[in-house]
Parts: sequence; C-alpha cells; structure tokens
Amino acid sequence: MPVRALWYRNGTLFLLDQRVLPGRTVVRRLRTLAETAEAIRSMAVRGAPAIGVAAAYGMLLGYREGRYTPASAAAALRKTRPTAVDLFVGIETVRTAWAAGRDPEAAAEAYRAMIVEECHRIGIEGAPLLRRARRVLTHCNAGALATVEWGTALAPIRVAREQGTPLFVWVDETRPLLQGARLTAWELARERIPHAVIADNAAGHFFRTGQVDAVVVGADRIARNGDFANKIGTYEKAVVARENGVPFYVAAPWSTFDTGRRTGAAIPVEERAEEEVLGFGGRRTTPMRSRARNPAFDVTPARYVTAFVTPGGVVRPADLARTLARRARRPRART
Amino acid sequence: MPVRALWYRNGTLFLLDQRVLPGRTVVRRLRTLAETAEAIRSMAVRGAPAIGVAAAYGMLLGYREGRYTPASAAAALRKTRPTAVDLFVGIETVRTAWAAGRDPEAAAEAYRAMIVEECHRIGIEGAPLLRRARRVLTHCNAGALATVEWGTALAPIRVAREQGTPLFVWVDETRPLLQGARLTAWELARERIPHAVIADNAAGHFFRTGQVDAVVVGADRIARNGDFANKIGTYEKAVVARENGVPFYVAAPWSTFDTGRRTGAAIPVEERAEEEVLGFGGRRTTPMRSRARNPAFDVTPARYVTAFVTPGGVVRPADLARTLARRARRPRART
Repeated sequence: MPVRALWYRNGTLFLLDQRVLPGRTVVRRLRTLAETAEAIRSMAVRGAPAIGVAAAYGMLLGYREGRYTPASAAAALRKTRPTAVDLFVGIETVRTAWAAGRDPEAAAEAYRAMIVEECHRIGIEGAPLLRRARRVLTHCNAGALATVEWGTALAPIRVAREQGTPLFVWVDETRPLLQGARLTAWELARERIPHAVIADNAAGHFFRTGQVDAVVVGADRIARNGDFANKIGTYEKAVVARENGVPFYVAAPWSTFDTGRRTGAAIPVEERAEEEVLGFGGRRTTPMRSRARNPAFDVTPARYVTAFVTPGGVVRPADLARTLARRARRPRART
Repeated sequence: MPVRALWYRNGTLFLLDQRVLPGRTVVRRLRTLAETAEAIRSMAVRGAPAIGVAAAYGMLLGYREGRYTPASAAAALRKTRPTAVDLFVGIETVRTAWAAGRDPEAAAEAYRAMIVEECHRIGIEGAPLLRRARRVLTHCNAGALATVEWGTALAPIRVAREQGTPLFVWVDETRPLLQGARLTAWELARERIPHAVIADNAAGHFFRTGQVDAVVVGADRIARNGDFANKIGTYEKAVVARENGVPFYVAAPWSTFDTGRRTGAAIPVEERAEEEVLGFGGRRTTPMRSRARNPAFDVTPARYVTAFVTPGGVVRPADLARTLARRARRPRART
C-alpha cells in the first residue's frame, strides 16, 4: 500500500501525524479549520505540497462550519507558516471557488488530485536523470508524506526503481526535527529501497570521496530566477555538490513556483522556536544558559541548481522564467 | 575556575566524563591502563590533544601496574582510536622515557604541561586574527575539554575576549554526539561568552547572509601538505566558508601535525557504530529496518585553509611543509 499523508471523507480530514513517526502511526481526525491550522503550525503535517493540500481541505472545513467568510477562512490559514508558497496556492484555489459560489469540496478534491498527478509526472520526468546514478542523496523529506502521494524528490527515485535502476539513497537526518531520519527513512524502509541515514554534515565526506552520484531535493518556494527556499541545510548540500561536480536537482509541482518573487531575496524564511535545537525529544541537551538560532529554511541561489524537475519536464535554471511565463499565458494548463 | 579535562595525582587519573556533560558533572577515577584505554575508546575523554595526554597518563598507569612492557603498554593504547595523531605522540613520549629508564611520571607530566602551554600560545598567536571579527563559528569542541586547558579553536577566542574583542560564537551542535551543543556551549556558558547553538547545516544560512566573520576549528591530524582530518562536518564548513569569502583557521599544537603523512589521503578515518546516528539519547529515532553510516571525521584539503594557528605563530598552508621541516631539524624546540 503506498504511503498517503492525508485524505478526506464526509467532513473529516484524516492526517498521519508526522511528529510521531516512525515510532508510532497515529491518524488524526480534523473536523475544523482551526484544528487544521494547528496541525500545519505544529508540523503534524509538513512538506510544501502537503500543507497546500491540507490548507485546501482546511478551507473546506471552514466552509462547512458556516462561521467563516471565504476571506476570513483564508486569513486564518495563511498565518500558519510563511515560507512554503503551496500553502497560499491551496488556500487561494478553494477561496476562489467558494467566493464564486462553486463547490469548495470539489475544488479541494481537484487540488489534491492535481498535486498527486503532478508528483507522479515529476517521477516520470525525473527518472531518466537518475538512470546512470547509483547513489542519490536527499535532504529532509520530500516524499509522499510531504506531498500526499509519490513525493517530489522521492518520485523520480521511486519511478527509476520501478524501471529497474538499482538506486541506493543517502538520507540526511535533517536536524532539528529529523524529517530525514524519521520520515524519508520510513518511506524507503517500507518500500525496501536500500538507504543509509547520515548525520547532516557527513554528506560532505561522501561527496568528496566520490560516493554521491546525484542530489534530489524538494522545495518550499522557487523564485522566478530559480533561487529557491528549502529545508535548512539544502544550501550547504548544493554548494558542496557543485564543488564536487555532482548534479543537483530540485523537484517540485507547479504550486511551488512563485512567479511573484523575482529572486530568493524576496522569500520569507521562517525562524522556529529555539527549543527545537536546544534539546531532543523533550530532553535538554544544551546548558541552561545557552541560546540557539533555528532558521527552518535556507535560500539556495539558482546557480547551484543543475535542473528543476517539474510535471512538465526538466527545466534548466536559465530557461525557468521563460517556462513560467509560457505557463502563465495558458492558465488552464496543468502540466 | 578554568575548565580542566583531566588531572593526575598519586596513581589516579581524574577525568571529567564528557559523555554526560552538561547535564551531569561526573569525575571518573582511573587507576589502570585498561580503564584509560576504555575511557578513550568510549569517548569519556575526546579531542585530539586531550586523548594524547590521557594516553600519556595511561602509559604511566601501565608502568605502575607492573605487568606491561613499554611496547605492550603502547600497543594496548594505540588500538583505541585511529584518527587523532596526538594519541600516538602522547603514547610514544612516555614509551621512550620508560624504555630508556627515565621516569614515566615526569614524562607524562611534562607532556601535559607542554600541551597546556602550547594551547595558551595558540590563543596568543591567534587572537589578533579575530580582532576585526564579531561573529566566529566553530565546529565540535576544540576547547579546554578537548585539550586539558585553553583549547585550540577556543584559545584565540578566549584570549581575544580577555583583550577586549567582544566576540559572539556560532556553535555547530555537531551530530551525532553533540560535542558542540553539549561541550562547547558548556565552556562558553561557564565563561559568559555570548553564543548560539545551531543545527549543523544551518551554518550555511548564516554564512550566506553575511553573519559569520571567521571560522576557527581544531584538528585531529594534519598532513605535511596541510590537508587535515577533523570532526565530521568540518569539510562542509570549509567549502561553504570559502564560497562566501570567510577566513577559515585551523588551530592545533605541534602534536597534531603528522610529518609522516604527505597528504590527507594517508589519514585513517574512523567509522563509529551506526547506533550513534540511528538514535538519540538511547532512543531509536529511525525505522528498525534502516541502516546508517557514521564516519567520525572527514578530511579537508589544504586549499580551503586560510591559515594554521600554531604555538609558533600563524602559518599559511603554502609555508607549512617548510615550517615543519625547520622544526624537525631542531627536535628540542617546543614552540
């Protein structure tokens, strides 16, 4: 059975609680917009495409509650997290339908189906890039949990393996919240895909000693010029990959491309509570007098990106603005 | 009171157990060579200069036990850890004295005193490099705990602050064993030196956004050409520092320079148990089917090093071989 991060039925949004995996498999049942907002804020659901879909359903739950306007529902959900642009796209998709008198449930379901289909397309478009790779490194979790199904970074790996490419995956553990060690490893272990978890900055050692053939990561927001935000640590991997001549791919559905931002300098980076760094599993590891800084994302300049893997194909950074402009002229095109 | 990692009195080696800091302050009392070897292997004492001193005292304890030859005592201690060359220098210093009929206790005490003095010299020589820096990044723990007193990387920071330079320190937490978050933060907190702990690969974000003015790290072994081994993650910091035009300094006593190794390719890199990565504080964080890789060190090529801070002054990588050759011609020179 493939992993699914969330699903909706009869007024309830079901959601795998990603904070307690892999130790426990807990499905949360959300019935209100406020519960959905809290699930996004607390990272019970995370990953840019997945929080976009969760927010779309959050709008639907708000509509069913009968005490929101389309605008007030959207405002409540927009405040949850700032960096992933998909959140705003998911909200806006359902808000528009609701405000125009169309069925919010149909809009949310269509949005989810589109994201799942786009992720599958990313897998098909990206798999050929990995055909000559044996060892692929990924950072954080850009798998099914981050996108509802398939994943972004993990989609080409899944499709390549279905096609017989025997890939091995280096999994950055991804401190402070260990989305790599907990979530990516969980997805790969379920599907028996060979992998090794590594301390985040052990990656450099494996790059330098020729043990990484390609990097594939997801993204939380991609500016028009190809600068992109992703989980903290992505920038270091991109710099070290280029230094070692290893191709670096960024996989994302169209909802992650923010044509309204010219460069990465315009992307807001969330800073989360320092407690996430100062301790672990509720236990303090640092001295009581110590402070921490905890940026949840970093911005990687486009010059480190070999190519973007999109639902419409592989796009070089130099071609990105033109590709996005062409899509903008055909607003109904999906891929 | 300054931090001291270990001290010797009347047949007992006292040693701060670095595995349980900062939560608990436990002083272990070692009375045999075997106990000392186990303390080194289990990282109750760690840091290249400190394990060199611990091993020197381990030789002394072996001598007092009366059941070792100089050669068998040395062999037992050499097996503990492979990467830090200081270990072998500390052992050899006492083995030579013992084999020549000189007093092993005097040899061990002199070795400790020399390391402490050299670290103080590193502080004095390195402090001027930081005079125009405000924010210094360090990786792992290269403080008093790693060197008995003063530290290597932390010595210039301590001396610069004594001289009135108001430094702030970025502390890489340094997974998997958190020597940064636990030990460096503990040393800095004790001395009220402002600092922030960060997830290891958050460093890149602070480099890219202009918030790091210099990097100072220690080393476990430095080859003749300036390639050096240090705690896993050092290589990534060095690459990202150079990419952002930030000076990168490596501070070490003479015992860390291995004139017998021409380049970093000849440095053995220890790989430790995968359990250190698969869990955290005894709790498994990864799926049971997942594996991990756990190289404890990486090798950074000399081209990323701005300068070595030695007890004899600041040495550019291009001048290192000549400096080491000059020292070799005067074997009694200490600094």
